[in-house]
Amino acid sequence: MKRSDLIFRQLFDTSGSSTYTYLLGDPASKDAILIDPVLEMVERDLAVADDLALKLKYVLNTHCHADHITGTGAIKADIYLLPGEKVCFGERYVEVRATPGHTDGCVTYVSQDNGGMAFTGDALLIRGCGRTDFQQGSPETLFDSVHSQIFSLPETFRVYPAHDYKGRHHSTVLEEKTLNPRLTKTKEEFKSIMDNLGLPYPKKIDAAVPANMVCGIQD
Amino acid sequence: MKRSDLIFRQLFDTSGSSTYTYLLGDPASKDAILIDPVLEMVERDLAVADDLALKLKYVLNTHCHADHITGTGAIKADIYLLPGEKVCFGERYVEVRATPGHTDGCVTYVSQDNGGMAFTGDALLIRGCGRTDFQQGSPETLFDSVHSQIFSLPETFRVYPAHDYKGRHHSTVLEEKTLNPRLTKTKEEFKSIMDNLGLPYPKKIDAAVPANMVCGIQD
Repeated sequence: MKRSDLIFRQLFDTSGSSTYTYLLGDPASKDAILIDPVLEMVERDLAVADDLALKLKYVLNTHCHADHITGTGAIKADIYLLPGEKVCFGERYVEVRATPGHTDGCVTYVSQDNGGMAFTGDALLIRGCGRTDFQQGSPETLFDSVHSQIFSLPETFRVYPAHDYKGRHHSTVLEEKTLNPRLTKTKEEFKSIMDNLGLPYPKKIDAAVPANMVCGIQD
Repeated sequence: MKRSDLIFRQLFDTSGSSTYTYLLGDPASKDAILIDPVLEMVERDLAVADDLALKLKYVLNTHCHADHITGTGAIKADIYLLPGEKVCFGERYVEVRATPGHTDGCVTYVSQDNGGMAFTGDALLIRGCGRTDFQQGSPETLFDSVHSQIFSLPETFRVYPAHDYKGRHHSTVLEEKTLNPRLTKTKEEFKSIMDNLGLPYPKKIDAAVPANMVCGIQD
């Protein structure tokens, strides 16, 4: 019998941070995981899962976000994961890959479903990448992470980032390997680009980072 | 030989109207169609098509929009379609279904790819539907359109609307048949709901409708 397709929903934060949240569900067991929920959108996320009769087993973050407060704490407490671990839901899983560089704790979740999907957080964005000038960021580390952990995936794998500010929903490994204006450069050129972005201090970082260190659960 | 998967991208209007634009491409011929582009996002849409080496064959509207100016005229002039017609791109096509009621010219485009997809415009939204109080709208007509032309599709078909204001990207025929708070009602109850929405006059309608009647091409 053909295994039923993964239940998959990409959701957008309409409250301001342009974050993508991902719901992945196993149709047989109804077990599901939620990646990068945003505090303000938790009610919407739970309604989507509920309408699909899914049981949330884990709620995951790709990293300690600086631009929004995570919804993971509001849903349930999370756990720390190690590279190579598999987060299982029903007969399915996502594999944890360490992709530091935007922050030192960034991970990418890789699914073999739907032809292959990588949830890259801010490590790799569509035609871009996360900044490297705060939260223990490092352009050299980010360059190595993307090349060794994401660009090494099959080229047809889809890239699902934590954000896109132009309304694009996903990309592919092939597209980013050939068209990403930063990550197609040499490591030296990449470092020079990243060191000279001159970005403003993130508006929400002073509230978001401490909150996210405790899973978004605040007094 | 297994036929290659459809190239498919859902794109969001970040300029304010929350419109979804859809790019569908045939991998063999590289022929593609674009559904419901928004004038302000045409450059982004063309860049996405260009990056995927797609040739835009047709640019389609689901209806004469009241909330934004179409990008179809800026890309190329469009053609009038009749119910039952197939719009072909490479070896693929979308079928035109007449789904009036939000406006009298609304259509739904149905694709057999990716397990089945319906591009419903404003006829059917996720857990909602388009208003029926302007542009020759009619709740009875909309009710009949959705039930006869969309709910008659296989329940696993995905519903891709022209908008969602809660950051949801798609739904399914089954979900809307069972969970849509308006269209699960009787026709009489539906008419009563739609006649009592008390919605404000759309901000952009006086500019958007005349512009869209000439394909968004303005002096």
